[in-house]
Amino acid sequence: MDYKDAGVDVEAGRAFVEQIRNLVKSTTRSEVLGKLGAFSGFFELPSGYQQPVLVSGTDGVGTKLKIAQAVNSHETVGIDLVGMCVNDVLTSGAEPLFFLDYLATGKLDGAQLTEVVAGIATGCRQAGCSLVGGETAEMPGFYQPGEYDLAGFCVGIVEKSRILDGSRVEVGDIAIGLASTGVHSNGLSLVRKIVSDRQLSWSDRPDTFTGKTLGEVFLTPTQIYVKPVLEALRVQHLPIHSMAHITGGGLPENLPRCLGTGQSVKIDPTSWQIPPVFDWLAQMGEVSPDAMFNTFNMGIGFVVLVPPDGVAATLEWFASQGLGAWAIGEVVPGNGELLGIG
Amino acid sequence: MDYKDAGVDVEAGRAFVEQIRNLVKSTTRSEVLGKLGAFSGFFELPSGYQQPVLVSGTDGVGTKLKIAQAVNSHETVGIDLVGMCVNDVLTSGAEPLFFLDYLATGKLDGAQLTEVVAGIATGCRQAGCSLVGGETAEMPGFYQPGEYDLAGFCVGIVEKSRILDGSRVEVGDIAIGLASTGVHSNGLSLVRKIVSDRQLSWSDRPDTFTGKTLGEVFLTPTQIYVKPVLEALRVQHLPIHSMAHITGGGLPENLPRCLGTGQSVKIDPTSWQIPPVFDWLAQMGEVSPDAMFNTFNMGIGFVVLVPPDGVAATLEWFASQGLGAWAIGEVVPGNGELLGIG
Repeated sequence: MDYKDAGVDVEAGRAFVEQIRNLVKSTTRSEVLGKLGAFSGFFELPSGYQQPVLVSGTDGVGTKLKIAQAVNSHETVGIDLVGMCVNDVLTSGAEPLFFLDYLATGKLDGAQLTEVVAGIATGCRQAGCSLVGGETAEMPGFYQPGEYDLAGFCVGIVEKSRILDGSRVEVGDIAIGLASTGVHSNGLSLVRKIVSDRQLSWSDRPDTFTGKTLGEVFLTPTQIYVKPVLEALRVQHLPIHSMAHITGGGLPENLPRCLGTGQSVKIDPTSWQIPPVFDWLAQMGEVSPDAMFNTFNMGIGFVVLVPPDGVAATLEWFASQGLGAWAIGEVVPGNGELLGIG
Repeated sequence: MDYKDAGVDVEAGRAFVEQIRNLVKSTTRSEVLGKLGAFSGFFELPSGYQQPVLVSGTDGVGTKLKIAQAVNSHETVGIDLVGMCVNDVLTSGAEPLFFLDYLATGKLDGAQLTEVVAGIATGCRQAGCSLVGGETAEMPGFYQPGEYDLAGFCVGIVEKSRILDGSRVEVGDIAIGLASTGVHSNGLSLVRKIVSDRQLSWSDRPDTFTGKTLGEVFLTPTQIYVKPVLEALRVQHLPIHSMAHITGGGLPENLPRCLGTGQSVKIDPTSWQIPPVFDWLAQMGEVSPDAMFNTFNMGIGFVVLVPPDGVAATLEWFASQGLGAWAIGEVVPGNGELLGIG
C-alpha cells in the first residue's frame, strides 16, 4: 500500500506546481526574492517607511464557490478571493504587498485548479500585489468530487502615523459610497436558497439581466478598490478620514466599524441607484428591505469618509477612474449605529 | 426569507468572536496594534533590522482533521496548523511574527471551534508569534455536520544577509535530524486507510502504544521547532548552514530542498531510532520501506546542516532543550538527491 492508494497523488501535485509557474510569475513585484518551490515566500520590505506597520487579513469566498462549481466556471472566484482580502487591508490605508492562497480539494484536477489560480493571479495584478506562496491540499473524502475550498491571505504596509481608523472621523463627515459590481462574495447562501426554492437554474436568463445567465450574474467578480483608493490617498492627497469594506452584514454591520467613538452614521438609501440584481433577489426571495441591507452590499462595496469640503474632489476622482461614487450619508453624534434604513 | 433561513447565523458568529477573545489575547506580542474585530490585523515592524525580509508560509492540517472529528477531540489540531506553517518559515532563519487562521465549517458549533482556536493559540505561544486575525466561514452544504477545514498563514522576519538557503551548504556538511513527535500532519490519508482497511477503531489500544488509543497516537501534535532553533542561531551562534522541514514526501522530498547546487545528501537510516508508530504502520499496512520514507517523516521532523566541527555543539544544544538530535547523514557531490535509503 502507498500514498497513491490512499487517494493522494504527489506527482499530480508536482505537475500542478509547474502548470501555475507562469501565472505566479505574472504577479511578481521587484521586492520578491526566492522562487516557487521554496519552503516559504520572501518579500523584501519596501524602503521609505519610518515606522512601518504590517497590515494583514484573511478571507474566503464562501458559498460563491458552489455556484462556480455548479456551472463549471472557475476563472473568477480567485479574483473574489483576492478582493475580499485586499479590500480589508486597504481600509487602514495600507498598500497590499503580497498574497498567499490555500486551495483544498478532494481529488486534484489540474485543469480546474489552474483556472482558479489564474483568477488569483488576475486579482493580484489588479491589486498590485505578488502571489508569493500557496498550499494545494488534496484531501480525499473531505470534499465532494469537483469541489474545492479556497482561503486567501494578504499582507500590506502602512506608515504608522498614517494608519486610518475611526480616530480621525468628525461629526459632519460625509460617507462616499463606491459602487460594487453586484453581490461580491457575501450573501451567496441566501442567493442559492432563493434560486433553489424558486426552482430556477443557473443557466436561466431572467429579463432583468438582459441576456446574462444567473450563473454569470452571481459570479461577477468582486470589485478591487486598491488602485483608485491608494492613488486617492497617496497621489491625489484627498482628505480621507476613514474607510470601510462592505462585506458580510452589509452597511449596518460594516460602516459603523470605521467610525470614532460617540458617532453614528445616517445614510439616505435613495441617494444611490440600487442595482437591479438586489431588487430581483428581494422580489424572488420575498426578502424584507431590512434583511436585504443586513445581508447584501446593496450596490455599495466600499465607503470612504471625507470632510464636507472634500466631497466634490472625491466624487470627481472616483468618477474619473470609472468607479460609481455617491455621497450616501453623514456622520452624526451617536453610539456606533447605522441610521436611515428600516 | 433571511440569511438565517439560508443557514448562516450571523449572531452565532459574533458570539464566537467574543468566546475566543481571551485566547487571542494570550498570544499578543508588544508589536501588535489595534484590536479584535477590526478589518485587519496590525503588527509594527520590530526594530533592529537593516534590510528586513518578510518570510511567509501557508498550510493546512490535511485529513488529520478527520481523525479529530471522528474522536471529537479538537484541542490539538490548532497546534498542528501553527506548526506546519511556522516550521516552514523557520527554515530560512526567520523569526515568526504573526499568524492568521481560516476556519470553515458547515454549521458553526461555538464550543467545538473554540477548542480549535485554543489549540491555535497554544501553538502561537509555543512559536512566540501573535494570532492577529482570522476568518470563520459558515458554509452550509459545503462541509458535513461536525466537519471543518482549517488553513493557517504565518509571517516571519529575517535580516536579508542572514537568510539561510542552499548557498551556504558545503560538501561534507553534516545533517542533524531533530526528533518528530510522530507522524505530525503528513501521511494521515494513508494512516486512515490502514486503520479502516484493518477494521480498527480510533479507540483501540494496540500493545505497541502502551495504553494509548490510536486516536491519541495519531493526534499527537506536531513539534514546533521555533524556539530551540532560533536560539541556536541567534543566541548560541551555532554554525547552521541550511535547514529543512520534513513534511509531505518525507526526507526524500524535503531534505534535498535545502541543499546547494551540485549536492546530494547521503543518510544512514540506522543512525536514529525510528519510533514504533512507523513500524506499526509499515506492518499493519504492508507498506514498503520506500513508500514509508516517501510518505512519513520516520521520526525526523526537522533537519539542520552544520559543518563537521559544529556537530558536537549542535547535538549538545538540542539535547539540552529536551529535543532528540542525531547526525543522520552527510552532504556529498550530486544532483539534488537523497541517497542511502531504498
